[in-house]
Amino acid sequence: MRTLKLVIQYDGTTYVGWQRQPNGVSIQALVENALAAIEGGRVVVDAASRTDAGVHALGQVASVRLAHPIDRLSLRRALNATLPPDVRVADVQEESPEFHARYAAREKTYRYRILAGEVPSPFERRYVWHVTTPLDVDRMALAIRDLVGRHDFSAFAAAGGAAQSPVRTITSASVAWEPTGQRPFGSGPSPVLAIEVAGDGFLRHMVRTIAGTLVEIGRGRLEPSAIASALSSGDRQAAGPTAPASGLVLVRVVY
Amino acid sequence: MRTLKLVIQYDGTTYVGWQRQPNGVSIQALVENALAAIEGGRVVVDAASRTDAGVHALGQVASVRLAHPIDRLSLRRALNATLPPDVRVADVQEESPEFHARYAAREKTYRYRILAGEVPSPFERRYVWHVTTPLDVDRMALAIRDLVGRHDFSAFAAAGGAAQSPVRTITSASVAWEPTGQRPFGSGPSPVLAIEVAGDGFLRHMVRTIAGTLVEIGRGRLEPSAIASALSSGDRQAAGPTAPASGLVLVRVVY
Repeated sequence: MRTLKLVIQYDGTTYVGWQRQPNGVSIQALVENALAAIEGGRVVVDAASRTDAGVHALGQVASVRLAHPIDRLSLRRALNATLPPDVRVADVQEESPEFHARYAAREKTYRYRILAGEVPSPFERRYVWHVTTPLDVDRMALAIRDLVGRHDFSAFAAAGGAAQSPVRTITSASVAWEPTGQRPFGSGPSPVLAIEVAGDGFLRHMVRTIAGTLVEIGRGRLEPSAIASALSSGDRQAAGPTAPASGLVLVRVVY
Repeated sequence: MRTLKLVIQYDGTTYVGWQRQPNGVSIQALVENALAAIEGGRVVVDAASRTDAGVHALGQVASVRLAHPIDRLSLRRALNATLPPDVRVADVQEESPEFHARYAAREKTYRYRILAGEVPSPFERRYVWHVTTPLDVDRMALAIRDLVGRHDFSAFAAAGGAAQSPVRTITSASVAWEPTGQRPFGSGPSPVLAIEVAGDGFLRHMVRTIAGTLVEIGRGRLEPSAIASALSSGDRQAAGPTAPASGLVLVRVVY
């Protein structure tokens, strides 16, 4: 058996998320079915991140064990010929047998995008959270620094998560306006504010709750100290709401 | 009656184009119907450019005459509440009675986007033409200069166009790779080549035929002199194929 590493991009808008679900189409099912057709038998694919319904990926990483000898470029071509156009395999690499996309991941980077301004661009609407109230980005930038380091992130996790430890290490966190040329077709009338967070792992809904809390801080409904207070209290009620899935993208995974 | 100028953005993917058609939904019908509901009577909207099916707009401009006294910001809000999310009114301005979006336009700018590389980004696929063969951009840049100036563009026009003059003046024309950060979520694996053309007017399919001809030049199937030859011959057969609508966007209109 060979072990392969796949880098996968997807527009998550119409999917139930990475993981197979009974109620809709998952990215995992699409990729496993496309691989099974080549392998001629059942295939299990493990991903670095089990992204939620509606969340996107620029650099999701998955691992798979295959017996079939197809070369990596032909495999990429065959997968992309089978997958729908909003799911693309950007890269296929041979890996050592012990490689596992989830357990071997050292750092993941997520970006959460907020479209400010009155009118949301038709080209951005699937990939942002549209926030019409003014945001004080200096307050948000001050608050986000408190995320960096090793913390118990219980206050930023969805209820009903796994019984694993809620301690994670955030290695970097930033909030900044995207350059106006960074959107499709160049600048539109509404600027995009990007929150970027990297760390060794994330609890369920963690980045979206960070984004929701930062927006409350930017709107003036919470103080910049709210991030530190929520972290030390461990109380989900101390953090802000969970921001919509559409604004979130898994940017990259480092091994 | 007041005369208003609307700036409209749309993702043209699912529409039959600007102009009302019997076979599907047009942007014109959507905007006229939304305005008619406010006006309480029939409304006619004239646009600077009658974009084809599948063509996008960042800055389409339309003019309309209304009796209703609604203020411009309320009108924008009411229109955006009625229109589907892939059609947005970005701006509404009062204009003098003689303003007409089509006849008063002095310059229009179009961009045609080509996604190079093996794997098309899921986030770009609606807004590009995916070309997998390598392109020599220096050849394309050399050829595109021959477009600038006042020419008979018959060789670049669709058959069956109106009986108007085929002479147009192109004021600028360029071809360049977009900075890698200029796509949604920053750089993906595949670069985007942008052809940008500005002029006093364009014949039907003209920008798409320019793009199709430039790609033939970039692929080495036509010489860089092919643009000049096609212009002087006036022969549609001397130009390249009409590139797909998905790659084309009306960027702006100057009055």
